[in-house]
Amino acid sequence: MATQGQVITCKAAVAWEPNKPLVIEDVQVAPPQGGEVRVKILFTALCHTDAYTWGGKDPEGLFPCILGHEAAGIVESVGEGVTEVKPGDHVIPCYQAECGECKFCKSGKTNLCGKVRGATGVGVMMSDRKSRFSINGKPIYHFMGTSTFSQYTVVHDVSVAKIDPKAPLDKVCLLGCGVPTGLGAVWNTAKVEPGSTVAIFGLGTVGLAVAEGAKTAGASRVIGIDIDSKKFDRAKNFGVTEFVNPKDHAKPIQQVIVDLTDGGVDYSFECIGNVSVMRAALECCHKGWGTSVIVGVAASGQEISTRPFQLVTGRVWKGTAFGGFKSRSQVPWLVDKYMKKEIKVDEYVTHTLTLADINKAFDLMHEGGCLRCVLATDA
Amino acid sequence: MATQGQVITCKAAVAWEPNKPLVIEDVQVAPPQGGEVRVKILFTALCHTDAYTWGGKDPEGLFPCILGHEAAGIVESVGEGVTEVKPGDHVIPCYQAECGECKFCKSGKTNLCGKVRGATGVGVMMSDRKSRFSINGKPIYHFMGTSTFSQYTVVHDVSVAKIDPKAPLDKVCLLGCGVPTGLGAVWNTAKVEPGSTVAIFGLGTVGLAVAEGAKTAGASRVIGIDIDSKKFDRAKNFGVTEFVNPKDHAKPIQQVIVDLTDGGVDYSFECIGNVSVMRAALECCHKGWGTSVIVGVAASGQEISTRPFQLVTGRVWKGTAFGGFKSRSQVPWLVDKYMKKEIKVDEYVTHTLTLADINKAFDLMHEGGCLRCVLATDA
Repeated sequence: MATQGQVITCKAAVAWEPNKPLVIEDVQVAPPQGGEVRVKILFTALCHTDAYTWGGKDPEGLFPCILGHEAAGIVESVGEGVTEVKPGDHVIPCYQAECGECKFCKSGKTNLCGKVRGATGVGVMMSDRKSRFSINGKPIYHFMGTSTFSQYTVVHDVSVAKIDPKAPLDKVCLLGCGVPTGLGAVWNTAKVEPGSTVAIFGLGTVGLAVAEGAKTAGASRVIGIDIDSKKFDRAKNFGVTEFVNPKDHAKPIQQVIVDLTDGGVDYSFECIGNVSVMRAALECCHKGWGTSVIVGVAASGQEISTRPFQLVTGRVWKGTAFGGFKSRSQVPWLVDKYMKKEIKVDEYVTHTLTLADINKAFDLMHEGGCLRCVLATDA
Repeated sequence: MATQGQVITCKAAVAWEPNKPLVIEDVQVAPPQGGEVRVKILFTALCHTDAYTWGGKDPEGLFPCILGHEAAGIVESVGEGVTEVKPGDHVIPCYQAECGECKFCKSGKTNLCGKVRGATGVGVMMSDRKSRFSINGKPIYHFMGTSTFSQYTVVHDVSVAKIDPKAPLDKVCLLGCGVPTGLGAVWNTAKVEPGSTVAIFGLGTVGLAVAEGAKTAGASRVIGIDIDSKKFDRAKNFGVTEFVNPKDHAKPIQQVIVDLTDGGVDYSFECIGNVSVMRAALECCHKGWGTSVIVGVAASGQEISTRPFQLVTGRVWKGTAFGGFKSRSQVPWLVDKYMKKEIKVDEYVTHTLTLADINKAFDLMHEGGCLRCVLATDA
């Protein structure tokens, strides 16, 4: 508790500008204000959304900033009025907040929460519209309300989920983004029923989590689609039952899938962030009822399109954010499911490094063999 | 019964080529073959889909043909194996078939039926892939499996709904297309709940039926949007509670609606067939749960588009055909609802003419004051 109320100087990976290597800096982390929580991050993974913003493709991206949103740690101290967590609690930061009080949270129809979005969207904290990070007095922006590429971070109390202290933080950090996004796209957004046919475009972490979700939902066929055939063997372990590489076919991929499935799949999931693939994912769905869920994040300014006839004849086009999971309520439930071995997590961790090696970790992300690289921050 | 098994020569309005006035001709109507029903059409209305095909915009449109798909009549004779209707039954032809046996009908998820689509889509009957209409031996194509701009027509037995013989055919003919499409878009496709906010783009027959459907579903606000302000007074009678004319605003219409509704509507319906309006209809929906239903038919080759972020943040894009109603099962139920005064029908009939005046009726369709023009065919 010696640090409580004090500025903490620690190591963090700072993105000074788009597309330039991150720099490990000594960063000052101010104490949490009312409604805020300072978390000692122990492990953080990298996700494609970090690379997306770092690459300058995110119109909301602000620099300099501290990226990172898939992590786990321990509460160091809390600001005034914080009741749901206390120092020592094991937590997962949640880029998707859950306040329980805004019209989104009360609607019963969405996991999006409006409470702190106006601040997290512009890289600051809500109470004073300022950052808690600085280097020699120069403010460094927050990112997604989480900024986990740092040994310490400050988050809003509505953006942190308290989890079972027995859970291994170097694994459950993945439950901060990619794995729940895939599972929830199937369970919450599409609501896949037993016996359904499913097509998954992109077999990275999110696509594989979709496969696992589809398998547990009882899907009869889970078709994995990827342009890297090396991914296919691994995908079997996650529930993919058959594989299609679009490069092996002269026909458009949607036609290949329609032909394979007597008219199209019941559910499709786009897990890449490519607008052309989003169209293919919709159009490979069965007339009358096929539902396509956009999970990937497309580059700014890009648009999806199709003929309206696709929808008039019964296809449904949806999307999902964090798989529709209510973060503070359901991340602890996902951790429990993992502890009971009901969902995979360990299997997604293909690489482990330390925060100092974060640029190497970004390079790894672009290799087909890498699913998640987990960085230890205190090494 | 003197006509049973005989060719009937009667009057029909023939579309010889796109965009040329229809011509009233003496047409030979062959007797129904197995699984077919010959119907004496007493009243037919005009719908924008007839104008769409007549105007040459339908890539499936074949000429010469007999248009028309919103009508009512009496069974004249039936072919072998037809058990569900008999001569003298009052019926409404159904362009959307219902066989009860195909994978669509059995799915429980859609009202689309696949049984006769392969024939009706190319203007012929299924058994011999030929037309039952001819003029001096020259075949005239069927249209949508109904061809109601004729004193007699032949339809598949899966494309005809038997109705209460007490129902006035000059009114319930409207239950063959536009009115059910609007009601069903609300009740079956969107499933609007009490207290919802609704936006309707286009206040023609379908848009007004959407308004009535929304009112009976308990919507709290029903916003009608049309560029013809003269339509607004009439729309109040169908359930529209407030009106917006996009021409009165400098901002894009989606922004106008978002501002009016504290973030967007719960449900929107596009009842025009304009792809730019379809985009606006989606984008005026509330983040997190807003659902937009495409009801209108766009011109061939046109595409809808939006940023995928619209869907990832929780909006849903759907479409509907015949409002999701199962035709043979539910058209009789709609007729009963009309007889019990639970739904409006009479109020949509703004003009009555005879088949001989059909070209005048097409002209009327383009006037804002016209909802439905019903033609008596035996005059």
